[in-house]
Order: sequence, then structure tokens, then C-alpha cells
Amino acid sequence: MKKEKKLKLRIIPLGGLEQIGMNITAFEYGDSIIVVDCGLAFPQDDMLGVDLVIPDVTYLKDNIAKVKGFVITHGHEDHIGALPYILKDINVPIYTTKLTMGIIENKLKEHNLMRSTRRKVVRHGQSINLGQFRIEFIKTNHSIQDASALAIYSPAGIVVHTGDFKVDYTPVFGDAIDLQRFAEIGKKGVLAMMSDSTNAERPGFTMSERTVGHTFDNIFLEHRNTRIIIATFASNVDRVQQIINSAYKYGRKVVVEGRSMVNIISTASELGYLQIPDKTLIEIDQLRNYPDEKTVIITTGSQGESMAALSRMAADVHKKVTIKPGDTVIFSSNPIPGNEKAVSKVINELSQKGADVIFQDAHVSGHACQEELKLIYSLLRPKYAIPVHGEFRHLKANAGIAQSLGIPKENIFIMQSGEVIELSADEAKIVDRVHTGAILVDGLGVGDVGNIVLRDRQHLAEDGILIVVLTLEKRSNQLLAGPDIVSRGFVYVRESEGLMEEARQVLHETLEECLRKRNADWSKIKMAIRDTMNEFIWKRTKRKPMILPIIMDVDL
Amino acid sequence: MKKEKKLKLRIIPLGGLEQIGMNITAFEYGDSIIVVDCGLAFPQDDMLGVDLVIPDVTYLKDNIAKVKGFVITHGHEDHIGALPYILKDINVPIYTTKLTMGIIENKLKEHNLMRSTRRKVVRHGQSINLGQFRIEFIKTNHSIQDASALAIYSPAGIVVHTGDFKVDYTPVFGDAIDLQRFAEIGKKGVLAMMSDSTNAERPGFTMSERTVGHTFDNIFLEHRNTRIIIATFASNVDRVQQIINSAYKYGRKVVVEGRSMVNIISTASELGYLQIPDKTLIEIDQLRNYPDEKTVIITTGSQGESMAALSRMAADVHKKVTIKPGDTVIFSSNPIPGNEKAVSKVINELSQKGADVIFQDAHVSGHACQEELKLIYSLLRPKYAIPVHGEFRHLKANAGIAQSLGIPKENIFIMQSGEVIELSADEAKIVDRVHTGAILVDGLGVGDVGNIVLRDRQHLAEDGILIVVLTLEKRSNQLLAGPDIVSRGFVYVRESEGLMEEARQVLHETLEECLRKRNADWSKIKMAIRDTMNEFIWKRTKRKPMILPIIMDVDL
Repeated sequence: MKKEKKLKLRIIPLGGLEQIGMNITAFEYGDSIIVVDCGLAFPQDDMLGVDLVIPDVTYLKDNIAKVKGFVITHGHEDHIGALPYILKDINVPIYTTKLTMGIIENKLKEHNLMRSTRRKVVRHGQSINLGQFRIEFIKTNHSIQDASALAIYSPAGIVVHTGDFKVDYTPVFGDAIDLQRFAEIGKKGVLAMMSDSTNAERPGFTMSERTVGHTFDNIFLEHRNTRIIIATFASNVDRVQQIINSAYKYGRKVVVEGRSMVNIISTASELGYLQIPDKTLIEIDQLRNYPDEKTVIITTGSQGESMAALSRMAADVHKKVTIKPGDTVIFSSNPIPGNEKAVSKVINELSQKGADVIFQDAHVSGHACQEELKLIYSLLRPKYAIPVHGEFRHLKANAGIAQSLGIPKENIFIMQSGEVIELSADEAKIVDRVHTGAILVDGLGVGDVGNIVLRDRQHLAEDGILIVVLTLEKRSNQLLAGPDIVSRGFVYVRESEGLMEEARQVLHETLEECLRKRNADWSKIKMAIRDTMNEFIWKRTKRKPMILPIIMDVDL
Repeated sequence: MKKEKKLKLRIIPLGGLEQIGMNITAFEYGDSIIVVDCGLAFPQDDMLGVDLVIPDVTYLKDNIAKVKGFVITHGHEDHIGALPYILKDINVPIYTTKLTMGIIENKLKEHNLMRSTRRKVVRHGQSINLGQFRIEFIKTNHSIQDASALAIYSPAGIVVHTGDFKVDYTPVFGDAIDLQRFAEIGKKGVLAMMSDSTNAERPGFTMSERTVGHTFDNIFLEHRNTRIIIATFASNVDRVQQIINSAYKYGRKVVVEGRSMVNIISTASELGYLQIPDKTLIEIDQLRNYPDEKTVIITTGSQGESMAALSRMAADVHKKVTIKPGDTVIFSSNPIPGNEKAVSKVINELSQKGADVIFQDAHVSGHACQEELKLIYSLLRPKYAIPVHGEFRHLKANAGIAQSLGIPKENIFIMQSGEVIELSADEAKIVDRVHTGAILVDGLGVGDVGNIVLRDRQHLAEDGILIVVLTLEKRSNQLLAGPDIVSRGFVYVRESEGLMEEARQVLHETLEECLRKRNADWSKIKMAIRDTMNEFIWKRTKRKPMILPIIMDVDL
């Protein structure tokens, strides 16, 4: 039978927990796999000490012969950040647009991967062929330039992946989203649409980036007599462009501060995505040559990140900029969930130094709201809907929109990481699950920190540690030294002197009892120490520090 | 000169950092001090392992002979929570309204302080005399019943402290805020007004609590066929009343779940602040006797608190309630800044279990917005304005409102903790600063955890600990055992075997060098161990675990 021989398209989200946002999806047909995006996640609150999180791509390693390339939708960390780590194992070419490639190349340089990584820049409207797939890059709008939706043509049908997007009819740079092409592809017939769910809970339409420019103009007009400091996302080049435009209009010099901001701005202007009038940019050291009201500082730190430039200014530890009464500080951003408190702290510190802080109306989102999602669904009229990009609640809201537009509930799939959906012209279903996971990166270590280590860190963080050391004579098990108790993170040493002395006595008794039975092995002694100390300390303090017994032996 | 003999009124906020919200303010005139509120704060993110934070009241202890009593505005934790701790040192009577006293008494019982604490219930409109002060309790509205503003009459003039308040013309229970009395006192002439700044950044007017009741009715109507679970603040008795009203109207039985919720509801109904129709409340075990669509569960956990009932239901670890597809879960609350992520996590978990989660429109704030603040300023027409209750940014916004109403900038004071403002009819100025601070409570320990301990916990949380132990012969400094290296929270033990072996070798060299110089003292040996290990571990892992050398000696 012909039908049974026909292969199906398999789509597999590989990005660990959806909630923490590593975007990486495998598309598989026959002997071909392409990988859309390769993002990292920032650690969650309980991942103490972890720097970043990357996806476990065992599935790609196991099928390395099939993997044809990475196809990248845009240059945000949650879509490109894991590349330098993953490329070491999955060394296949990267396909993406010019600015996105520029940003990726900055990373490759840092990791010394430029020479070993094949790269191809693709223009919007252009297609590439990768094995059984053809992938067309479609222009969209987002809070970073050069974002793309992908039309993925396979023998099983067309899947459109929107990437992160919004509909901006009046973008600051370049063209509006290519709605006509979406419509054309819709006419051809779309098997499945995978769309950005971030703002699917929000009614209405996301405002144009250009509206923020008007807000800047108004703020610059109103604050003609003060220095202006604006914090925004380093990667939002259009935002930076608009700040530069307003600065130029009002005759101000612009300083760019913060390493990531400086990097992206230089990449964007080299590649022609940013137009800076001559003599507008100055170095931070030149600030002193201009009166305050003739300067603007564009800076990182809009999320209250403790090491970023704005936070350092607010805390009075920035080397070059001191906040003065009368300074106008604008947050051109919304706090990402989880950062609210940090942002508020910075706002308070700035206010206390007398700055006038503006944190409303100087930002728009880069993600589509409900009406925009409806528009794309209506242009594409997909048979199946697979909401992507967002927490579960957002995916669910996106699914609700799809359903409200007439896509039957059974044709809508909210996928979990590792689930394999198989699609053909007449059917779609979850058929399998492959191994996925989150790999923690801490310093130079990739994957050497996991649940046990994190649980220990959590325990240490809560109540500290009590270390009990003693030295035994190797053969006789005679106590030669100790038990000594050393604590860290438990309680002020001075306050605990009496407590520790008592603990030592209680321990002595326990030890004597253990050692009297000559055969007591170390693991039993350690367990006895742990039990005795846990009970004693809890009774006296209602705390549970980690108890760590260490026994040394000396061979006399 | 007569004028110089006249005493001044001193007002001193004692509540540690304003940002973390311990509300406690001393009013002092001659030989009399009264204390308005006595709140606790919840620990900030960097206060690892700390349970709660109370104010340092050294100033009150040093002036104990003057202290006449605590005057409490309302029963929220940030206004009453430190009482059980502070009363041990400052054992003076408590004056407050009936429900507030009921809630305080629950605490006193827990701490075994009922017999030793004098208490007097005051009605709205009533005044009490405390030394040189007369204090009048004025009815206000807030997210807890029985809230009061205080008119504090002193020989130097009248100060009105609004407490936390909103203007609710149609409260669910009892009267609207006594605007007429505010106006009368304003006519008499008000020296200073201290007002709630929480919502001072928000334009407009806070909606009436009653509007939430309409929302509940609509939700109940729309979700006639499912179980309804509603999470809200335990102390918002009016909210609970309205849920009960809707439940009764739609013929549903009500279960109350969560310890703090059960406590407050029982106190409130005993004291007559909550009307529950007969046979409406059922025990959680009776749920099985009713169809889902005939039940409502009111629960704690609206802030995503990990141990609260709703969070346990969402995580599938609640003993009695299992979330089912189709359940309607309502968050009747807004996340308090800092809790957004935790709330989102619970929403995701509930959605994943198929619940329909409603988290908008079923809540109103308990704090006055800008128009309400303008109303109270206009009724009282104070000479001086002292914004209270809020982060610095909120105090500043409140100051802006005062200024917009014609109060001169120099008559508005944003006070820091411990600052002493002296007021007379013709002058107000900050004249002094007294000692204040935050005392951390961890388990049974009050004040035995401080910066050093917290810094150690932070360090341990980041990268864990490496312990280096060795045993020396007492007189010869000969190495008898070790160095052994034990780590916790650093890296998987298996992964680190090679690293640890190398570290031991490096250490051996360092030690040999130390011990060769026979006179090496222990502190020098420890420092050498720390330096060697720090350098080695950083070079190899880019991590900085805590290095803790422990030396034991044996006297042979």
C-alpha cells in the first residue's frame, strides 16, 4: 500500500522544561533532521550558583548522521545562546539572517569556534535546501532586528514556525512583517503552524516600536535641562536607534555604557542596522566636556541585574557615572517575571539619590498579542496548531485562540519537551518521547552540577554547615583528637560558644559509646554523630544545618 | 522666653529599612512615648534561611520609663507581627480595635503572652489618653476589617496617621471611611499628616471591595458546572464573606483550607465580622459527599507560597484535594512584588492538570490611589506631610502629590529609619538620628544571625564548600594524617575524583614547604592552604567554593 510507505514528518521540542525557555526544536523527515534555534535558559531561583542552562541534545548526538544544520530565527539568547556549547558535539552549519549571524559570530569568536563552524547568511524571501527540507525565511518584526518566521517545506506538508514575532506596520528599520507571503503560503495549504505564545494572554494588538520614539521625544522635550540616562535591552537596536534620533534632534551627545550594549551596537552599526550621525557618539570619559543637559547615557541594567552598569550607578559603585539630583533616568523596558524586585531596588536607589525615574510608557513588547495571533492564524489557516514559546499558561492561551478560530481541539497540540509528534496530511499524533533535559553550566563545568549538588547548596544556604572532625588511632580506634566542631553560615561564633561546648560534650558521650564497641565501623560512627547533632541542634535552635562528620586516622 | 520652654513633638520611625516594611513609629512628647504599630518584615532574597525580621527597638528600651503603650492601626503582619517578640522587652499595654485585637491575641496565645500583656479594645470614634497624648481612632477602609487612622493630639498639635487605608464608599461590612471626621479635624488645624504611600504611583481611585463580589457572581454563573477553588489572602475577611455570599447564592458548600485562613475566619466569625449562613461551611473530608459543582474551596496560597494549600494542590502533594481537568481556580489577589514567579509556577502547574485558571479582575487593592490621597490631604489640609508605608519610590510619589496640592516642598519630609523629626506649630526639622536596625529571626534564634553568617550562607549557596583536614603531631608539626579534602555543594563527587587527587598533590607540596619551616604557625598554614586551593580550583573550574582548612593535633 502506497500510503503506508510514505514517511511522516516528526517534530520534537528538545528544550528541557518549556518554562525556563530553551528554544530548540528538531524537524525530522526520513534521513534528514534540521534544528530550529538553539537557545539557553537562565537559571531558576533554586539553581544556586548556576550560570546558565543548556539543552541536553542526546537525541541529536544519537542521530548525528541525519542532522543537516541549525536554522536560527533571531538573535536572542534563548534562541542562540547554547550554540557555542552544542556545536562542540553537533558540528553542522548555521543558517540565519545577517544581523543574527553577526551576533552569533561574536559568541563563536569568544569560544574560539569561528574556524570550525560553517555559516551561511540567508536573506528574507530566500530559501535553503537541507536534505528533505526546504526552509524559507520570512520577514517578521520583533524586539531585535532581522527576525524570521520559517516556512518549512517537507514531503509531508508545510509547517510555518513564526519564531518570536509581532506585527509592526511601521517598524523603525526595514520592512513590516511580510503578511502577503504568509497569505500566499496559507493559500498553498499549511499543515501546521507553530506560533509565539508569550503574549497570548493579552488582548488587543502590540503597539508599534515607533510609538516609543514619540515617547522619547516627549520626555526629551520635557527634560531639556537635565542629563538623561536610559536603560534598555542591549539587543534592541531599534530602541537604541530611536534614542539616538531623539538625542540628535535635541542636540545631545550619546554615551553607550555596558559591555553587551557596546558589543551589539558595534555589530549592528558595522552591518548597517543602525545609523548614527557623525559626532553623536562620545566616549564616557568625554562626558565631563559637555554640560549635563547635552548628554544621554544609554546603558544596560534595565532588569536590575546587579552587575550591570545602571545598577552600579544606582549603588554608587560605577567608576565613571555618579547619579545626581535632577538626573532623569528612563527604564525603557518591562521587568521580566522574576526581576520585579531587583528593578524596584534600583528604582529606589536612584530615587534616593534624587533622580527622577520614569518607568512607564517608554517600552512596547516584541511579542504578538491576541489580535496579531488571530491575524496570522487567519492568513495561514493551518490544519494543526502547535503553540510554542511561553510558559504552559501562555501555550494554553494560544491554544484557546486557535480553537476560537475554528481549529478543532484535537488538532491543537501543547507539547512537552521530548515528545515526538508525527504529522501527515491526514493525521497528527504524539507517538513517542525522546530523552531531553537541562544541563547546568557553572563556571567551566558543563553538566557536573546536578540535583545532589544543588540540594546540598540549598541546605547550606538555609542553615549553614556544622563540621565534626576527629582523629582515631587506626587499629585501636582510640580517640586521638577531637571531636572538634567548626561551623559556617550557622550562627555567630561568639553567640554559639556555649552551645558548641554543650554539643561537644553530647558528642563525647556518643563517641565513647561507639568506640567502646571496638568493632564500630566509621560509617556507623558518622551516622551516630549525625543523629546526635541533628537532634541536639534542632532541640536547641529549631534549625537544621548540614552535619558533616569527618574522621581521620593515624597509624601509630 | 516662653517659646523656648515649650516642648516639641518628636516623631521617630523605628522600622529598620523602609523597603522591607516593618511599620513601627514612636511619637514622643516630654515624658511620654507612644508607639504606633509593631510590624515584622519577611526576609529579603539575600537573607538566606531567615524566617522573619523584626525591628531593633533599642531606643524604646533606653526610654522604657516613658513608653505608655502600643497603638495599632490594623491587623496585618507588617503592623502587628513583631509584637510577640518586642513585648518581651517593652511590656506596655496594647490599644486597638476589636478584630485587630482578636488577631493579636491569637499570636499572644501562641507565644504564651496572654497573661502578661495588658490589652484594651477601642471603638472607632473613641479616644484614649496616654501620658501627654490623646489618640482618637478614626474608621477607615482597608483589605482587612477594623482598620483605623489615628488622630494623635499632643500639646504641639495634631498629627493624623492614616494607617493603611483606602476610601470605600460601599464597603462589604461596616461603615465607609469617616470622611466627615477627617474634615472636622482638618477644620481644627492639622500639624502633620502621615499617609499610606503604597499606591501613590497609581492614578485614579481604588475600586470598592464590593466590585469583587460582582466578579465572583459572574464567575460562579459562568462556571456552574465545575468545582471552584479560590485563593486569597487569609486576612481579607470581606473577600471571604463575598465568596461565601456567592457560594450561598448558587447553592454551593464552602470548604476553608489552609491554617492561617481557618484561624482568621474563626476569629472573625466569633467576633461577628463574618456572617456565614447555616450549613454552608463543610469540613474538607465531607467534599466527597457533594458533587463538584456544588462546592467551593477557599484556600491560602494566593502568593505561590510553596507550603500553602493551593501550591500543594498544584504540585499534587495535597492530602485531601486533587486538581482535576475542568476545575476552575481563581486567584483573588495580585502577586506582591517578588512573588510573580512563584505565582506563575503555580498557575502553570494548575493549567497542566487541566484546570481553568482565572487570575484577572477578581481582586482590588486595599490601598489608596492618587485621587484618594488628594481627598484626604484636602480634608485635613496639614501643614506638614510625612509620607509613610511604601518603598522609597512610593514615598516620593506621595510627596509629589502633597506638593501638587500646595504643600511647600520644605514642609514635606521623606524620613529614613531612625531619623528624629521635631515639630512645633511653626517649625519642623530633622534634628537627630537614633539607633535602629533589623533583627533577624531564624528558628528560635533572635539576632544571632547577621551579616557574617548571611555572607557565609551566600558563599556556600553559590559554589559550596571544600574542607581540607589534616592532623599534625603537636610538638614536631609532623603530618600524621591528611590532607583530606571533603566537599559539599561543589561538584558531583564522581566527576571530581581526578580534580581532587590533583588538589591533594598540590596541597602536599604547599604543606611540605610550610612544615619544613618548623616554626610555621597554624594560621599561616591555614592561609597557605586557602591560597593554594583558591588558586587551583579557580584555575581549573572558574568557581570559588568556600575553602575551610581544619587542623587537628595529636600529642604523641
